[in-house]
Amino acid sequence: MDKKIQEQESDYAITPRAVDYSQWYLDVIAAGELADNSPVRGCMVIRPNGYAIWENMQKILDSSFKAKGVRNAYFPLLIPKSFFEKEAEHVEGFAKECAVVTHHRLALDDKKKLEPAGLLDEPLIIRPTSETIIYSMYAKWVHSFRDLPLLLNQWANVVRWEMRTRPFLRTTEFLWQEGHTAHAAKEEADATTLQMIEVYQEFFEKYLAIPVIKGIKSESEKFAGAVYTTCVEAMMQDGKALQVGTSHMLGQNFAKPFDVKFTDKNGQPQYVWQTSWGISTRAIGALIMVHSDDKGLILPPKIAPIAVVVVPIWNKDSEMVGVIEQAKQAAAQISSQAGCVVYVDEREGRPGPKFYEWERKGIPLRIEIGPAEIANKKVVIVRRDLGDKAIAPLADLPAKIKELLESMQINLYERAKQYREKMTKAIDSYDEMKTFLSGKDSGFVTAGWCGNAECEAKVKTETTATIRCLPLQQDHKPGKCIVCGQETTDTVIFAKAY
Amino acid sequence: MDKKIQEQESDYAITPRAVDYSQWYLDVIAAGELADNSPVRGCMVIRPNGYAIWENMQKILDSSFKAKGVRNAYFPLLIPKSFFEKEAEHVEGFAKECAVVTHHRLALDDKKKLEPAGLLDEPLIIRPTSETIIYSMYAKWVHSFRDLPLLLNQWANVVRWEMRTRPFLRTTEFLWQEGHTAHAAKEEADATTLQMIEVYQEFFEKYLAIPVIKGIKSESEKFAGAVYTTCVEAMMQDGKALQVGTSHMLGQNFAKPFDVKFTDKNGQPQYVWQTSWGISTRAIGALIMVHSDDKGLILPPKIAPIAVVVVPIWNKDSEMVGVIEQAKQAAAQISSQAGCVVYVDEREGRPGPKFYEWERKGIPLRIEIGPAEIANKKVVIVRRDLGDKAIAPLADLPAKIKELLESMQINLYERAKQYREKMTKAIDSYDEMKTFLSGKDSGFVTAGWCGNAECEAKVKTETTATIRCLPLQQDHKPGKCIVCGQETTDTVIFAKAY
Repeated sequence: MDKKIQEQESDYAITPRAVDYSQWYLDVIAAGELADNSPVRGCMVIRPNGYAIWENMQKILDSSFKAKGVRNAYFPLLIPKSFFEKEAEHVEGFAKECAVVTHHRLALDDKKKLEPAGLLDEPLIIRPTSETIIYSMYAKWVHSFRDLPLLLNQWANVVRWEMRTRPFLRTTEFLWQEGHTAHAAKEEADATTLQMIEVYQEFFEKYLAIPVIKGIKSESEKFAGAVYTTCVEAMMQDGKALQVGTSHMLGQNFAKPFDVKFTDKNGQPQYVWQTSWGISTRAIGALIMVHSDDKGLILPPKIAPIAVVVVPIWNKDSEMVGVIEQAKQAAAQISSQAGCVVYVDEREGRPGPKFYEWERKGIPLRIEIGPAEIANKKVVIVRRDLGDKAIAPLADLPAKIKELLESMQINLYERAKQYREKMTKAIDSYDEMKTFLSGKDSGFVTAGWCGNAECEAKVKTETTATIRCLPLQQDHKPGKCIVCGQETTDTVIFAKAY
Repeated sequence: MDKKIQEQESDYAITPRAVDYSQWYLDVIAAGELADNSPVRGCMVIRPNGYAIWENMQKILDSSFKAKGVRNAYFPLLIPKSFFEKEAEHVEGFAKECAVVTHHRLALDDKKKLEPAGLLDEPLIIRPTSETIIYSMYAKWVHSFRDLPLLLNQWANVVRWEMRTRPFLRTTEFLWQEGHTAHAAKEEADATTLQMIEVYQEFFEKYLAIPVIKGIKSESEKFAGAVYTTCVEAMMQDGKALQVGTSHMLGQNFAKPFDVKFTDKNGQPQYVWQTSWGISTRAIGALIMVHSDDKGLILPPKIAPIAVVVVPIWNKDSEMVGVIEQAKQAAAQISSQAGCVVYVDEREGRPGPKFYEWERKGIPLRIEIGPAEIANKKVVIVRRDLGDKAIAPLADLPAKIKELLESMQINLYERAKQYREKMTKAIDSYDEMKTFLSGKDSGFVTAGWCGNAECEAKVKTETTATIRCLPLQQDHKPGKCIVCGQETTDTVIFAKAY
């Protein structure tokens, strides 16, 4: 066996989920070479395997946005402190965790040490989100109702100085997209807020095979500066919730301080109505946490940078050329007829370590092809989600691959959905909820809530669970607040969350 | 005429090039809605029309890189000061113009004002380029010769605190790609340096229709930390040079301080050999400056986000539906058969202002279609570069459009090349060079240079021109330094530059 591959195998040991879920997550990331810790506190490096997933996510979302008339633009990284302060709730929400630029050069001090120099007149904040800088431009661009709606998006990096970080889920710097729209009418902004959370729902469910619950955040959990925040929430394999996308109705909260006004059809000046919405590299964390197993990453076919890997197998050197040739032919056929990305692993080395490598990297299907397979005109196909081996005639390979990829995509979604359903409980008694949430197999609780922040805070203090959202679709209607017993028409989801 | 369009027309007045070239450039950007000044000093906003050009540039380059085996990754925005200091020339080159993060939150001070708080133990620099942070990771990832070559690229924003800025050409923050490779052998790194500058040459010449000169920078103009820098230089319409892409051979200059070592085939530890290379949103500035005219932007077809605009024309309201229908049919045919992006301008309003709008936005071809054209089964096509009108039968439209787009792409390249040739002079006398460079129609000078930094500095002081590069292909071989007369085999290009 190749010495290097041996070393790697031990480097890539994965802690089982049942032993330590948190360590398992870190191990899957390391084994899949998705990301690495950087020397900068709380910042990660996204390695090529991880970044390729992000590129696929960008392609899917970008084309969904453009289909809705949204155009991309780019706004400055740095925000003057005075802009940041204009919306009171907004600055309150972000001031505690922002990177501040105070100087514009380094120069040698008295002790010949290079220190910050060139003090800025006004400190600049590295964007934690861009409402303020973007809307200062909207004020310049929007004049008449004919300039509306204004629908822009930007793909960017943002910085939030988080104290407790975890790769993909919560990092000081992260990559995201942030959409920002301005409308002439409140109803249009309400509709766009909802429309974009539906775009996210489709993205997660159809492509990432992650079932999500669409809902509205409570006041205490909404975006700092929004009138209300809608969200999509997903359940991880430890039963915890992860907020994977948000869409905010901003009302006129930013339009007023930034003076974004237009002349309506009657010639009257009006403030615009606005929305903002985003998803981030956190979606990669969700993808890992929802589908992967103790062998490593599992990627749904529709988001996998490589859908199929072909591993040619030979015993004698004399067989090598022929087997590789046949593997390449099969790959070309699958690629053109099944329309997916296929990689032929021609590297030297034994097949076993190669199998493990592609397994821990989450590639949906593996094809094994050797002299026996070529002679029989049949190959072995292994599915990453179930580990099932199938034998397929070489002639039918593209059709079989297409069928297996589709089946795997559905299976991953269904498996995640069944798990969520199993781990979700409709509860009407506060004591029962406390017991459920403190248990090992705790998950989502659906329960009534009166809307009072004190009841919400009590649950958080006593169980660490938070209100994830008021689901837009409510099946369980208890009619009473689970904490205070007051009558209510609202049902919420309580869960521990990342 | 629509009141708003009237207002816009006067907003979009363009200063002729002959009157004020510098103002013309800013006017073209404003009229084309490519970018806008932001409230952050030296930072611009890239508007949707400008960003769509950048997206096309990204697509072209990204696929060229991937075809060479390069993969994308993402590294932190913030670099610890200590990393930045590890390579002496590098920090010397960038310390004077870098944004420094010193605090991680804002808090109310004694006067109830929100001020920087949470002083960092070590200041962080916003990346002006990422060699240091990336190579600190390479040290962790590279162990054996089997890990090489390591070929990564990142698409990112960078910040350099420039004192004199100009949209796209020089801004405090800009977008770029930076490729970083590590190799086992010096020869491989040399070859990659050259290979990447050739990728840039193809990008500029084939897609942007911008002829470039490929060459090597003098010591004083090379990248801070490189062994040598190769570049592509283009001539703008005022005869000035613009450096549009660079590829650096870094040797082991970074490998040593960052300890990027591998075990070679003989089991011996060795430092890697490295390259880095990049192009930025400056390429959009070059695109504008090379091709546009006094009517506004001109986009080469291969980079234009919209290649063809169809303007339906009707006199009576009753004609509107039929004309728009016919326009859409023609657009669909062109789009599918000529394989280009076509936009139908269905907006209310007279055709005249629409024509001006698409002209100043640089759309390569405009099709005019009205009741008379429909009756005659012929349409009018107007080329943006020459302003020529052609009449084409509706039946032949896709073929005609394809032909015109190809012809326009070639014409723009040839026009730019002829201009550069006209404005380039081989000069052997220093006095003649001084006269040429001080003239109104000054451009590039090819002349001998002894390699001495003092001769280079003398030219800069006396003419403001700099050595743009030692061209890889040298036609003019004067044999003597134009300044000191010393014998030399090197020819360089002197020019004033942006």
